[in-house]
Amino acid sequence: MVDWALVFDLFGTFFFAISGSLLAARRGFDIVGSLLLGSLTGLGGGVIRDLVIGVTPTAFAKPIYLVPPLAAMVLVFVLVRVVERFSRTLLIFDAGGLALFCTTGTLTALHAGLNPVAAAALGVTTAIGGGLMRDVVANRVPQLFNPHDIYALPAMLGAALIAVLWQVHWYSAITTVIVAAIVFALRVLSLHFRWHIPRAVADRGYEPPERAS
Amino acid sequence: MVDWALVFDLFGTFFFAISGSLLAARRGFDIVGSLLLGSLTGLGGGVIRDLVIGVTPTAFAKPIYLVPPLAAMVLVFVLVRVVERFSRTLLIFDAGGLALFCTTGTLTALHAGLNPVAAAALGVTTAIGGGLMRDVVANRVPQLFNPHDIYALPAMLGAALIAVLWQVHWYSAITTVIVAAIVFALRVLSLHFRWHIPRAVADRGYEPPERAS
Amino acid sequence: MVDWALVFDLFGTFFFAISGSLLAARRGFDIVGSLLLGSLTGLGGGVIRDLVIGVTPTAFAKPIYLVPPLAAMVLVFVLVRVVERFSRTLLIFDAGGLALFCTTGTLTALHAGLNPVAAAALGVTTAIGGGLMRDVVANRVPQLFNPHDIYALPAMLGAALIAVLWQVHWYSAITTVIVAAIVFALRVLSLHFRWHIPRAVADRGYEPPERAS
Repeated sequence: MVDWALVFDLFGTFFFAISGSLLAARRGFDIVGSLLLGSLTGLGGGVIRDLVIGVTPTAFAKPIYLVPPLAAMVLVFVLVRVVERFSRTLLIFDAGGLALFCTTGTLTALHAGLNPVAAAALGVTTAIGGGLMRDVVANRVPQLFNPHDIYALPAMLGAALIAVLWQVHWYSAITTVIVAAIVFALRVLSLHFRWHIPRAVADRGYEPPERAS
Repeated sequence: MVDWALVFDLFGTFFFAISGSLLAARRGFDIVGSLLLGSLTGLGGGVIRDLVIGVTPTAFAKPIYLVPPLAAMVLVFVLVRVVERFSRTLLIFDAGGLALFCTTGTLTALHAGLNPVAAAALGVTTAIGGGLMRDVVANRVPQLFNPHDIYALPAMLGAALIAVLWQVHWYSAITTVIVAAIVFALRVLSLHFRWHIPRAVADRGYEPPERAS
Repeated sequence: MVDWALVFDLFGTFFFAISGSLLAARRGFDIVGSLLLGSLTGLGGGVIRDLVIGVTPTAFAKPIYLVPPLAAMVLVFVLVRVVERFSRTLLIFDAGGLALFCTTGTLTALHAGLNPVAAAALGVTTAIGGGLMRDVVANRVPQLFNPHDIYALPAMLGAALIAVLWQVHWYSAITTVIVAAIVFALRVLSLHFRWHIPRAVADRGYEPPERAS
């Protein structure tokens, strides 16, 4: 039988790794830098999740987790010229990672025995952690804090939905995919329609990340 | 009976969360960004402390730790216009978190069985960790490294005092409050009087954090 | 009998701490900032390594690990004017830390029972982690990602060599020193001859770290 949780987690790792390797390409890093930024983005959130739970991080326990970042580095190196809308590509893959990791992160935490509130919080941490580290290491203001669209809110909704489905015993591979699809759709639609929520201070403008590229 | 260690820790979390939400407001982040930057600032130091000790981080073990960041986000959203001296407000709350966390961090480490030197070092790490992550994530040179006042030194003094008080069995809620008050006073006075200590290289100027705001 | 693994680890910590304290000096931080940036650089990689393995980080378990950062801070304060070629000095010490930590990190992971692939990956993480945190905290694009020389590649080679030597039971203090010397030589030669490897995207220039100094 297929271990769907592992499959979803590996795809989430791959999507985030693509976003990291694309950012590395945009910044002119070399292929090892691309591999490392992809690995940090794809594996970083899960390492934090596993350290909080108290188990050996899967990135170091299961060598198969090193495959998605390697594949992402190669794919970006070979195919990056094919990709036309560069900026959006990074955001779409990032949204895919976000959608999968908020579900698998919450589920891993629930399996480990955390209470539903903590599990959802850890799921959100898993989902936003890798992208946050990617942007911090590449020295730009994290995408997470861009107030012109919504980023963490869909992940929060997805993590909460998974915690509720778990509580009412409706959790399955299918409901997980549906929740991930909702999170992905909300994130991408917010990019397209520039959905946003109130500022922490309404009358103050956003300071754009000057060196972001 | 009141669990004073928990009370102090929650207030420290709240003070640091205010400083994070204020920085989010200043940068024009939205309310979710304000909640997340407040959470990272308020909970980040304690998560590192608990991971080093080897226990489940309190931020994920006790849901009550999610209340201070939520309260901080709401307070900043509602009251930020009332606050006149914006810059100083952030620094004062940051000083409150620093004062409480260097004491509670050291005590938690001593309770966990670390030797006094390591416990004091971990207390300092707890105290400066959240603010460091706040500034790094918001992409500015950490306040910690501003050489025009003293930041880590009061926390080091407070952590050392707590370790000594613990060794001579004079530790109590009252002595903790006194130590925290001393740390807070030293930090705030250093801001007012621009107390400073020698540079790592005396004849070289400080490169101000250009994008700090 | 001498515990060579401890000796190598302490020297690696010292070399990285020097690089951190030198960067602090260059940025005009004060002596406490120098101590803290040196500590983060020297101890950060090992803390991540130990957290992943699941043991109390040596930085907090063995007080002797606080000596190298203290010595580095004092040395930089006293001797920095003697040092002529400032920029290269930081890179040479950083290379020394990299060379020692990729070997000791991999060995620590192998001793803890990780499989060879994971152990090599954790050795690389240990080697590049401290310098990465140094640069991120000092708000510059990490040296690691500079495509004009090679940084992580020698560490990857060293970690892989150690894992292989371990597997064939040829591991000893002497082979460790030889591997570290190879890593150091490759890193320093790549700086001198500007060895580089393909970019993640070949026709796109590198965005230099504007505020790096």
